[in-house]
Amino acid sequence: MSARKVTKIGVLTSGGDAPGMNAAVRAVVRTGIYHGLEVFGIIRGYSGMIDDDIIPMDSRSVANIIQRGGTILKTARCKEFFEHEGRKKAFENLKKKGIDGLVIIGGDGSFRGAQKFSNEFDIPCIGLPGTIDKDIAGTDFTIGFDTAVNTAVDAIDKIRDTADAHDRLFIVEVMGRDAGYIALHSGIATGAENILIPESKTDMEELVHSLTEKEKRKKLVNLVVVAEGDEFGGANEVAAVIKKRIPQADVRVCILGHIQRGGSPTCLDRLIASRMGYHAVECLLTGKHNVMVGIVNNNLYYTPLDNAIKAKQKISEEWLKIVKILAS
Amino acid sequence: MSARKVTKIGVLTSGGDAPGMNAAVRAVVRTGIYHGLEVFGIIRGYSGMIDDDIIPMDSRSVANIIQRGGTILKTARCKEFFEHEGRKKAFENLKKKGIDGLVIIGGDGSFRGAQKFSNEFDIPCIGLPGTIDKDIAGTDFTIGFDTAVNTAVDAIDKIRDTADAHDRLFIVEVMGRDAGYIALHSGIATGAENILIPESKTDMEELVHSLTEKEKRKKLVNLVVVAEGDEFGGANEVAAVIKKRIPQADVRVCILGHIQRGGSPTCLDRLIASRMGYHAVECLLTGKHNVMVGIVNNNLYYTPLDNAIKAKQKISEEWLKIVKILAS
Amino acid sequence: MSARKVTKIGVLTSGGDAPGMNAAVRAVVRTGIYHGLEVFGIIRGYSGMIDDDIIPMDSRSVANIIQRGGTILKTARCKEFFEHEGRKKAFENLKKKGIDGLVIIGGDGSFRGAQKFSNEFDIPCIGLPGTIDKDIAGTDFTIGFDTAVNTAVDAIDKIRDTADAHDRLFIVEVMGRDAGYIALHSGIATGAENILIPESKTDMEELVHSLTEKEKRKKLVNLVVVAEGDEFGGANEVAAVIKKRIPQADVRVCILGHIQRGGSPTCLDRLIASRMGYHAVECLLTGKHNVMVGIVNNNLYYTPLDNAIKAKQKISEEWLKIVKILAS
Amino acid sequence: MSARKVTKIGVLTSGGDAPGMNAAVRAVVRTGIYHGLEVFGIIRGYSGMIDDDIIPMDSRSVANIIQRGGTILKTARCKEFFEHEGRKKAFENLKKKGIDGLVIIGGDGSFRGAQKFSNEFDIPCIGLPGTIDKDIAGTDFTIGFDTAVNTAVDAIDKIRDTADAHDRLFIVEVMGRDAGYIALHSGIATGAENILIPESKTDMEELVHSLTEKEKRKKLVNLVVVAEGDEFGGANEVAAVIKKRIPQADVRVCILGHIQRGGSPTCLDRLIASRMGYHAVECLLTGKHNVMVGIVNNNLYYTPLDNAIKAKQKISEEWLKIVKILAS
Repeated sequence: MSARKVTKIGVLTSGGDAPGMNAAVRAVVRTGIYHGLEVFGIIRGYSGMIDDDIIPMDSRSVANIIQRGGTILKTARCKEFFEHEGRKKAFENLKKKGIDGLVIIGGDGSFRGAQKFSNEFDIPCIGLPGTIDKDIAGTDFTIGFDTAVNTAVDAIDKIRDTADAHDRLFIVEVMGRDAGYIALHSGIATGAENILIPESKTDMEELVHSLTEKEKRKKLVNLVVVAEGDEFGGANEVAAVIKKRIPQADVRVCILGHIQRGGSPTCLDRLIASRMGYHAVECLLTGKHNVMVGIVNNNLYYTPLDNAIKAKQKISEEWLKIVKILAS
Repeated sequence: MSARKVTKIGVLTSGGDAPGMNAAVRAVVRTGIYHGLEVFGIIRGYSGMIDDDIIPMDSRSVANIIQRGGTILKTARCKEFFEHEGRKKAFENLKKKGIDGLVIIGGDGSFRGAQKFSNEFDIPCIGLPGTIDKDIAGTDFTIGFDTAVNTAVDAIDKIRDTADAHDRLFIVEVMGRDAGYIALHSGIATGAENILIPESKTDMEELVHSLTEKEKRKKLVNLVVVAEGDEFGGANEVAAVIKKRIPQADVRVCILGHIQRGGSPTCLDRLIASRMGYHAVECLLTGKHNVMVGIVNNNLYYTPLDNAIKAKQKISEEWLKIVKILAS
Repeated sequence: MSARKVTKIGVLTSGGDAPGMNAAVRAVVRTGIYHGLEVFGIIRGYSGMIDDDIIPMDSRSVANIIQRGGTILKTARCKEFFEHEGRKKAFENLKKKGIDGLVIIGGDGSFRGAQKFSNEFDIPCIGLPGTIDKDIAGTDFTIGFDTAVNTAVDAIDKIRDTADAHDRLFIVEVMGRDAGYIALHSGIATGAENILIPESKTDMEELVHSLTEKEKRKKLVNLVVVAEGDEFGGANEVAAVIKKRIPQADVRVCILGHIQRGGSPTCLDRLIASRMGYHAVECLLTGKHNVMVGIVNNNLYYTPLDNAIKAKQKISEEWLKIVKILAS
Repeated sequence: MSARKVTKIGVLTSGGDAPGMNAAVRAVVRTGIYHGLEVFGIIRGYSGMIDDDIIPMDSRSVANIIQRGGTILKTARCKEFFEHEGRKKAFENLKKKGIDGLVIIGGDGSFRGAQKFSNEFDIPCIGLPGTIDKDIAGTDFTIGFDTAVNTAVDAIDKIRDTADAHDRLFIVEVMGRDAGYIALHSGIATGAENILIPESKTDMEELVHSLTEKEKRKKLVNLVVVAEGDEFGGANEVAAVIKKRIPQADVRVCILGHIQRGGSPTCLDRLIASRMGYHAVECLLTGKHNVMVGIVNNNLYYTPLDNAIKAKQKISEEWLKIVKILAS
């Protein structure tokens, strides 16, 4: 890794958007300016690097955005960047502007691209974990998760009102293709009977049995929360089985969908985004290059981008036990 | 209609639940008690009348509920009540308790049942329009509409964040099987390009044309709001056509679903529910029987239950024009 | 009034800010552009006219603002504009740019200024009622009121949680220097015992009596909502009397303050702002000059700016009666 | 400490209420019932023990409360319990019912009372940290803090809208008599210029200097967040100085007050409350008596009630530096 002093940096958001990305961008820009760096915003992730959609940013550019959902830099998935050709084009655009350091806010896929890019063109890259799915190793928090899970909780609370009014069973699908964190947390927080997640095998017999038993006891509100990536399938698949096996049950499906990506970030997401953004610039300045900035046990924790992979969640046995007991 | 003095009244919620029903129940109970009546809550709509699930209520029973979604009386659709046999059973349960007046909070189907019941058993019935769909003639407001449409607006605002971050086109489906009010209001309020409603024929050619044209101008956020009852089909059907006709567009579907039924009622819904609940009891006491209590131009307006039907919305040409101009 | 065709218009927000002002600005800009006008944004109300802080606007300038609180044009109160000298300077700045029509979003004070300005310099002015206080004659709605009152209701709901947990009496002060609308609506919607407003004389003896009586019955949640302009004084003054007269009561004061001015506008505020903004431009184009655009009984209603004054609310006797009965 | 098996337990909430207390009560009740215990709810904290206001609870008693603010058990501060006489009366009421274990949800004061009570009457007590102030040693989380700080952030976001519209300086006071956590977190999350907290000496000269400097640069939104317990005084005191020193500034004060105590708990507060409540019962059953259940670095952490004291927050130098840089 180069020991050259970084003087102009670019910041971009990449992959799926997540609430809090704007707070992270703000922190990167203002910390950079504080340290006398020039800061550029790269639009639409790696696409903007390739298309030379790169704009200078000052302190005012990030005023009044800490509370906004989405990302003012826009985001995209970019196939061209998978190819050497694309990355070369991107590098030339950076070179033209003199950008000699990058902060990438995104997920593990974005980090792998960054690592490859850095290897090829010797530009130091810092990754910030920005994903609502919380499925990244090396950090207790990812930017966006806390907001997404609170959005899910608010929505399920509303569904509970109508479930309760009708004595209905609702199967609610939340986001999480590879990880069940949103399902697990929102399910516990809304008192769901059952929570179906990719990390644990779904025992449909047990689910049907427990719902049948509750139906007999006239337990009135029944919520089942399903992660979209559950190996049994999503909410529609689960509902189909239940309708067949418990025909007397009044079953409804809700797929929360993209509302979970938007909205004003929670306090926690703004805080971790601010802290991570600040430290991303510190890393560039102090030569701690090509790492992802994480927070573990409330301390900064740096993972080489090479190792920044999707975490396999070890499902807490404790929580699974608590779910069963508290929903009784 | 009987001129007997009403002394014991029952209140029930029927059909789909709507936010603000609790505020209406509270108003009926407290106004009844204020006038020296005994008030009973009938659980699960007409089912509770048939099953004798009827409980005495006092002022405390309705404390701290004005802000709650759902309905503490629960609600249901009840097939048995369509049959004379069922209604007879219901009447006997009322008679046993001495209940000689009813307030029914629900939609047009519930009112027809009430009218039939009243004709057969000479019990005065008052209807309060409780439905999120706002599709009842004889009133400017229905209990629940304002909350539902604000829930839809909040959700679409969140979707806009992610639509904007990705330059995506979102097709959002809102509730409204027979009426496009939620779609129209939430679509205008969120700056949707197009709003597809049952009351106007959907011109798919024009929709595709306008989206194509906007795609060319790189208009960045595109929202199409579809009422579930639009004659073209719901959001999935619309998305299928668009994907086929504009293959380069990045199209996503969101079906907001039952979150629109729940949640704490807005100020407006609490106000109209309180006002209508108060006047329902006044009607029973003053002999204005078998009417629906509505509000038109801020005045009370009474429609005979016989005539309380689903309104055919005459779509305002003015609004349709404004939509097109403002979304440009 | 001049019959010249209007070709360039300016839009400004003036006086206290109100949620929905951005939606109105968006509607004015886009309707103007639709009709081939050039549209300018005037910053900080009349101050921007005097300081020549006037910027051209296009369709993009107002993208993604319909959901934002505050006003992108900023607002101010401007003493200089009360003087002929100031207005002359303002006119010269407009003339330089060729602006020959104005839309003013604000309250009655702003309208009087507009009328004077129009008389002197023959520039047609259209007023849109933008104030959270809803105290303007000639319209059922003002931009911002519905949002403000829902913000107050949300806040009072939260206070109720803690009031209920502690069996406390809370005196909550809401905005409204001359008008009690926010107090009246939010008070009814949250089940307040008593609502003190400028439009009706506050009978402190009766308030103390009713609270004492409720204290005896151990009624557990007690909320009193006070408009800041109540002739008895604000919440602190009321609390002082109550503490003296009912020393055993656990009394707390909350002054909601400026949170009532901010936040994302409700669906209703966005709708009326859009509709009024659209019609403001129509007025300029069709020669209906120097009027305020209002909505009465769901129809457009135009009041000459000369007559657009603070409304004296005639307090509805019906509502005052309902408050007493429902809070029992 | 007694080795007797616990068979009947009581649960109470004490001191200031906090969102999430209901989730904790639910967890205690259902975990107790799961383990075959009888569970009693004690109303109004220690007062209910003394007044024998103690009710049996079953699984249904805590249905549909996980999402509610406040506490269904109500809470109070109880002077009588400071006296041996009062505690003796309380013990006799417990004895009468056979209650042989207690779970106290509250703050450090409540824990000291519990320890004394346990010493005198040999009843094992478990404490759960329930306070919005987060000022308890031995735990990273207290029930209610995350909700309170998000409520403060929402409110300050609204204030920012109006501050931005008017170029005003707002001094916002948040709760925190002895601890600045709410101020620090909400201040960072809303981009406040300055954050005044009890844990660090307020340098008024520096504050005035930095505001003056920003005034010159026309930095448009200025927020200062003050903890009520800041040694300089609250928001009104701070505003008085600023008005005097920077007379041209347009300064406004907002005291957020009791809205910070209420409202539906966030996902995080529901999760930690559920987890702590579950483990409180486990502690009673496994003989881990007279401890407070905390969570440190995501692991359970038990502090003897004797040592469960108000934490002296060591203010993170890192955060204070970040605040200054990011608000620039």
